[in-house]
Amino acid sequence: MSDTGVTVKKNQDFSQWYVEVVLKASLADYAPVKGCMIIREDAYAIWEKIHEILNSKIKATGHRNVYFPMFIPEAFLKKEAEHFEGFTPEVAWITQGGDTPLEEKLAVRPTSETIMYATFSKWIRSWRDLPMKINQWCNIVRWETKATKLFLRTREFLWQEGHTAHATSEEAEAEVMYALKEYKDIMENYLAIPVLVGVKSESEKFAGALYTTALEAIMPDGKALQMGTSHNLGQHFAKVFGIKFVGEDKQDHYVWQTSWGITTRLIGAMIMVHGDDKGLVLPPKVAPIHVVIVPIMFKGVEAEAINTKANEISEKLKSNGLNVVFDCRQEYTPGWKFNQWELKGVPVRIEIGPRDLKQGQVVMVRRDTGQKSPVKEVDIPITVERLLQEIQDNMFAKAKTLLQDKTTAINNYDEFKKMLEEKGGFLKAAWCGSTACEAKIKEETGCTIRVCPFQKEEPTDGCVYCGQKAKETVYFARSY
Amino acid sequence: MSDTGVTVKKNQDFSQWYVEVVLKASLADYAPVKGCMIIREDAYAIWEKIHEILNSKIKATGHRNVYFPMFIPEAFLKKEAEHFEGFTPEVAWITQGGDTPLEEKLAVRPTSETIMYATFSKWIRSWRDLPMKINQWCNIVRWETKATKLFLRTREFLWQEGHTAHATSEEAEAEVMYALKEYKDIMENYLAIPVLVGVKSESEKFAGALYTTALEAIMPDGKALQMGTSHNLGQHFAKVFGIKFVGEDKQDHYVWQTSWGITTRLIGAMIMVHGDDKGLVLPPKVAPIHVVIVPIMFKGVEAEAINTKANEISEKLKSNGLNVVFDCRQEYTPGWKFNQWELKGVPVRIEIGPRDLKQGQVVMVRRDTGQKSPVKEVDIPITVERLLQEIQDNMFAKAKTLLQDKTTAINNYDEFKKMLEEKGGFLKAAWCGSTACEAKIKEETGCTIRVCPFQKEEPTDGCVYCGQKAKETVYFARSY
Repeated sequence: MSDTGVTVKKNQDFSQWYVEVVLKASLADYAPVKGCMIIREDAYAIWEKIHEILNSKIKATGHRNVYFPMFIPEAFLKKEAEHFEGFTPEVAWITQGGDTPLEEKLAVRPTSETIMYATFSKWIRSWRDLPMKINQWCNIVRWETKATKLFLRTREFLWQEGHTAHATSEEAEAEVMYALKEYKDIMENYLAIPVLVGVKSESEKFAGALYTTALEAIMPDGKALQMGTSHNLGQHFAKVFGIKFVGEDKQDHYVWQTSWGITTRLIGAMIMVHGDDKGLVLPPKVAPIHVVIVPIMFKGVEAEAINTKANEISEKLKSNGLNVVFDCRQEYTPGWKFNQWELKGVPVRIEIGPRDLKQGQVVMVRRDTGQKSPVKEVDIPITVERLLQEIQDNMFAKAKTLLQDKTTAINNYDEFKKMLEEKGGFLKAAWCGSTACEAKIKEETGCTIRVCPFQKEEPTDGCVYCGQKAKETVYFARSY
Repeated sequence: MSDTGVTVKKNQDFSQWYVEVVLKASLADYAPVKGCMIIREDAYAIWEKIHEILNSKIKATGHRNVYFPMFIPEAFLKKEAEHFEGFTPEVAWITQGGDTPLEEKLAVRPTSETIMYATFSKWIRSWRDLPMKINQWCNIVRWETKATKLFLRTREFLWQEGHTAHATSEEAEAEVMYALKEYKDIMENYLAIPVLVGVKSESEKFAGALYTTALEAIMPDGKALQMGTSHNLGQHFAKVFGIKFVGEDKQDHYVWQTSWGITTRLIGAMIMVHGDDKGLVLPPKVAPIHVVIVPIMFKGVEAEAINTKANEISEKLKSNGLNVVFDCRQEYTPGWKFNQWELKGVPVRIEIGPRDLKQGQVVMVRRDTGQKSPVKEVDIPITVERLLQEIQDNMFAKAKTLLQDKTTAINNYDEFKKMLEEKGGFLKAAWCGSTACEAKIKEETGCTIRVCPFQKEEPTDGCVYCGQKAKETVYFARSY
């Protein structure tokens, strides 16, 4: 691998391109522990942005952050049978403290339902305590045996997990949809990634849930990526952990619960969808740096004047709330800097050289299209603002086109297999609703049902696998 | 324990009082895992505040957040011998992933020097890469065998760890002092807790450091609490992990490093120092809620008018950036609410009843002093603002008095032991500098040297233990 610059084309070797972009843009690094990663400065800044956006949304609607221990006694995990079966194969176990073997081994949380709900039963006593709406930002461990991939699948990752308890089923349902709506907003309007939303099939739902809703995006290589989930847990956990409340009717009731989460994999999705052969392309709304200013000369009187002007522009833009880097390092050439900041995906570059200075202008370059245009000094702030919005919109529009291109309506199984090999993507097909057909398709093609849309489309064909009467039209895909 | 209200007096049974306040004010709860705790909503909100304050400080000075894996291979921990010896007795070990025993057991990070610095050696190549200043917010595990205590000593806690690498020893020294200065600001000007700062003795320093600086506070029971530390790591780790850079002189050099951290135990200190027999007293600058408004009547036409007015006041204060709760719950009496919000330590309470409404005023009550005063409606915003500042200042002044009262200059060992039994606190005494005397004092009294002040005071007496010529005057105390 060359030290700087991406050497692989995105459409030639997508997987290798991805790794190069992640490493060379310094978003992440391999950790000295197998299957783990280091989230570096710029990627963490994006995660902090997501953190901030979601926090402000959920706090405004009465959710509060907490922190529960990451150790879960084995007995707790075991309480909900489906949950235990779903998670134990990938649990990391702590068996020793100092020199002493533990009496009961402890799971490092693969998710926190069981440790939290054991306590909910203590906190919730009356209808006055409901709804209880808490959220936690933390690290999660799932001891993957599959090949790991930076951001998308690592043994440790960061996430947010919302957990709520309600007096009625209706309230729980509304909460599931609430989380889904906020997630969709973050993915589409901040990360600029369009998503399909819907319900997971029985075999794909969260272990222990009544049902799982999900947001799914398509990657340029035709594989789907689950972007987030929001589960209706019904009363499954409430019954197992005894989470009851005395209602206004003075009777005992079990609560209705939800849980929902998004993870650092969103950063991986963003890289995949938007990046190009030069490296990262960051949506302005989550970019840690909005504008980089590169002076074109280094020495002499003119250089000083250029630096003064660049500094002025930088301060002006900063005062408008933008993050600006004025790259005045002398040890690098302008060309080297252009490549470096393009690799890092900064949305707007401002170049200022001797001729620009004379003409009272700068050159502005869009990262998404590469378009260059001279901008009069007085117009810089308003132009930057407009460009950032245009870039954000353009990136979303491009990603939407990708989603459309990678979505194919399928009438029969031969076409299904043919399309899958030709371009992958979402295969929209009729399904009879049987787990057997779903399992057969998975076995034969590697495709799973990504979502069953909320708005049911009346299928005109029979089930894509068995030909029997179809129940609904669903989206299949291979996935990360 | 009664369900509401603190039943133990702070000066009668401090330890029990502390536990009651923490649990009843819902700051934390015991976890179903031994030695662990749940950080609840209000306490987590305070942690978020600390997070926000420190983040804005360190980002402004070029530090950036990252996330490293929490797993540390045993071999890494072992590399720095002192470090390994210091930490292994309290490491939680992961030995199994799913059903499979791990080839090499993994430590859950007790601190991240080793995992980070193994990677620093890859990232740092040239003087251009320096200084490297990163920080991480995460959970930490130390498998305590001593009795645990909510916030102060638990097997898992949250912290922030700054890690920096510099080209020169001078820069590293400046960084150590920088972190110390920002910590002091947070502790004194936000948490309203005065601290002593200085250097730790050799036997109390961080395992692997060149030297450790620390901030120490005194608790009302006379025990000291270490509030934060900032370590100069010298080149110890750099040599072990091979962190070298090519200088401007084209020669290879080892970097100079620092690390520094504060933890969720700060919340415990804040509770201990400021709380009273009614419960929590929160410094306004970190309080999750600044003002609670309690209406005095519930039914009838007047109630409606009162609620309207209360809402108006609430909105006005919120628009000034304050967090306000208008407690209009009908299922509780005003008296119950007063107790509840006092327990939770909200700095200012506003009461509004029918007579107040008629007179165009409210009653304002300070949490710290209990002082009540009528305030004309028009004066509410400015009065609240003034009160919050007064409360903040008063709390710090009171805590300063506590520190003074609990600090005693000692001339000889008999006096030392007598004072220790009588009132504990910081015992300021001359010390010859020998580790043997320090160890003897610890063995005989349980006291350790908390800090050796930066500004050396010329000792007039001989060493408090051996009577030999003293090197400096230091602060001893029993501690948490």
